Amino acid sequence: MTELYDILANGNPNDPTSRIVRLLAQKGSLSAAQIATMTGLAKSTVSVALGQLRNSETVIPSSGPNETSKNAVGRPRASLSLNPQAGTCVGVQLLPQSIRTVAADVSHAVLAEREQQVRRDYSPEIACEAIGRMIDDMYGGLGLNRNTLLGIGVAFPGPVRPADGVIVRSSVLPDWEGLQMAKVFEAGLPYTVFGGNESNCSAIAEMTWGAAKGIDDFIFLKIDLGIGGAIVVDGRVYEGISGGGGEFGHISLDPKGELCRCGNRGCLELIGSLIPVMDTARIRFGKDLTVDEFIEHVDSGDAGCRRLVEDVADTVGTALAAIGTIFNPPLIVIGGRAAKLGSVYFDNLTNMYERHTLIKRRDTPSEFQTRIVPGTFAGNDSSLGAIGLVLQGTN
Amino acid sequence: MTELYDILANGNPNDPTSRIVRLLAQKGSLSAAQIATMTGLAKSTVSVALGQLRNSETVIPSSGPNETSKNAVGRPRASLSLNPQAGTCVGVQLLPQSIRTVAADVSHAVLAEREQQVRRDYSPEIACEAIGRMIDDMYGGLGLNRNTLLGIGVAFPGPVRPADGVIVRSSVLPDWEGLQMAKVFEAGLPYTVFGGNESNCSAIAEMTWGAAKGIDDFIFLKIDLGIGGAIVVDGRVYEGISGGGGEFGHISLDPKGELCRCGNRGCLELIGSLIPVMDTARIRFGKDLTVDEFIEHVDSGDAGCRRLVEDVADTVGTALAAIGTIFNPPLIVIGGRAAKLGSVYFDNLTNMYERHTLIKRRDTPSEFQTRIVPGTFAGNDSSLGAIGLVLQGTN
Repeated sequence: MTELYDILANGNPNDPTSRIVRLLAQKGSLSAAQIATMTGLAKSTVSVALGQLRNSETVIPSSGPNETSKNAVGRPRASLSLNPQAGTCVGVQLLPQSIRTVAADVSHAVLAEREQQVRRDYSPEIACEAIGRMIDDMYGGLGLNRNTLLGIGVAFPGPVRPADGVIVRSSVLPDWEGLQMAKVFEAGLPYTVFGGNESNCSAIAEMTWGAAKGIDDFIFLKIDLGIGGAIVVDGRVYEGISGGGGEFGHISLDPKGELCRCGNRGCLELIGSLIPVMDTARIRFGKDLTVDEFIEHVDSGDAGCRRLVEDVADTVGTALAAIGTIFNPPLIVIGGRAAKLGSVYFDNLTNMYERHTLIKRRDTPSEFQTRIVPGTFAGNDSSLGAIGLVLQGTN
Repeated sequence: MTELYDILANGNPNDPTSRIVRLLAQKGSLSAAQIATMTGLAKSTVSVALGQLRNSETVIPSSGPNETSKNAVGRPRASLSLNPQAGTCVGVQLLPQSIRTVAADVSHAVLAEREQQVRRDYSPEIACEAIGRMIDDMYGGLGLNRNTLLGIGVAFPGPVRPADGVIVRSSVLPDWEGLQMAKVFEAGLPYTVFGGNESNCSAIAEMTWGAAKGIDDFIFLKIDLGIGGAIVVDGRVYEGISGGGGEFGHISLDPKGELCRCGNRGCLELIGSLIPVMDTARIRFGKDLTVDEFIEHVDSGDAGCRRLVEDVADTVGTALAAIGTIFNPPLIVIGGRAAKLGSVYFDNLTNMYERHTLIKRRDTPSEFQTRIVPGTFAGNDSSLGAIGLVLQGTN
């Protein structure tokens, strides 16, 4: 446990041991030969490092389908993974009026989840108290010692600067602008804290457990009551110099358009998120209509609701076509509750993408086409992805 | 020579020797300690590989300012570089009515340049003949044996698919669509050929020798009589699944706008390149006005020409603001002849960028601001960058 903690929190990221642990944390289980190929390290170097990691029981043989036989003699490729006993992590998502936590072990198994309501515009102190209480509750309920906790990953609703973890902007929690994530939480909680942007965390969740598993390059677009996103290149989130990478919701489509909460005009979020859809739907169904109820109306074939979905899908598809022209990615994952809108949404979005993007599906062999798919998660993706911040040792 | 050729053309890209050679090819000269840090390889592995490379004289001590003393005893950090004698490369750029070639040694020194006129819509056969003649001429003039030639890099005006080198699209050379770069040129020339997109090659030139030297993440926008671009992440060009990555000129700003040569409507290239500027300027100065003459009018303070530059800079700056919102990059390099338009262009472009992008300069400490700078090259950047394709072993 102590060894894994040291590796993740203090290790030189170029050190072979550290690289092997991070790779296993990201991929789950791998053979020594796969580790050598993927890291580019010499087989002898991998062998020495794995020997130490196995002696300390940080790495154990993984019990995959081929590993159940007791006769291990001559088995050419034993799979290895991090020891679930070697530590636990907590992922936190800061929402406008609640805070969500997930506890997981280092093999990615979710152990417990909690959510607590807080008042709007809550302070860092209130957040720390709520998180501390939820951790005590989860770990108490599981009979787990909090000493196993390697660190907390916190998904923040706004850009976080990679160099120093400073919160650059936030319209959800404006009073937090300028604060340093690790400092804020380590003042109120006795754990190591890694902070990141919530959409980037969602992309980590899709990459580790979801729709982008095994894909090294993809674009993630989270469409809900707001639009966020992330750019993943070579298996890593591209964050940008101030943490603003992937903020697709604030592309200004109309420089003279309506004022956005970000301070610019005509942003994609204003016309492509579920906000204008819900505003119109509530005129007919009443101001208490929820997004989930709206989705039920769509699913049951309500003509007006379907039309609203078609129109917003056209808008997003046209903007996504420009994103496609820029990236020509193998995969685009649509997250958030828009992912639940089904074929009426995805068919229109994909048609507009094809119409307006540079490299079109009709001209491209299928293996080189850009796939557009709904995300696997719609609720706890950011808190789950925040666990990835701890395992990657990002802060 | 043979050893370097084998490493570049056939080596396993994860092999330590291959990684060290590519790193030196990209960075010029480095110490063994720097190589270990930058590759993450063990010092002992680096030492063994460097020993072999020095024995074969593929790598030599570099004659930097600290290396001139004959008393090398106790010198703690000898710098190493590839032996210029170890091989030469040729870079080729395919232009609409001419073909340009550059010969360089592996230490990046340019040895000779040539350009030959060809008729519009030339065939692969004509291109191979012209390139072969220019190589014979350059190598004859230099008294160099063509056996030293490690390979030819070819910069193509259109997306080239990374997986197989197939030309995906080209409005400059439409008959070449669907051809495989290496196959086309290796049929007509007795050399190993590496093909890539011309804007990506220009970005490699800026990264290796120019305005982005030492910067691992940047956006390159080439603005001339057309708009191309490239995305560089972690020191590598992000190409996209079909080679369309960085095609900023074909972002559709107005889905109902004018028809573009790419088949879409309202592309940035139609309103942000030097095409509409020259069209308007030629009404006043005559249809033979060249871009260089137009730039002279701007420099001499002609009010109408300056206004044209201000207006197109506003257009590009507004579109670039959206690109900035997506990437929040540390650096944006503007290449092409727009880079020669001076402060009247860059001031307006930067103002519109600041107005419409998400993360603004005024809110950001200077070390985290996005810098927008003119490129170092305006003419031979793609042919120069194509040499980088050979040194990186990309094909």
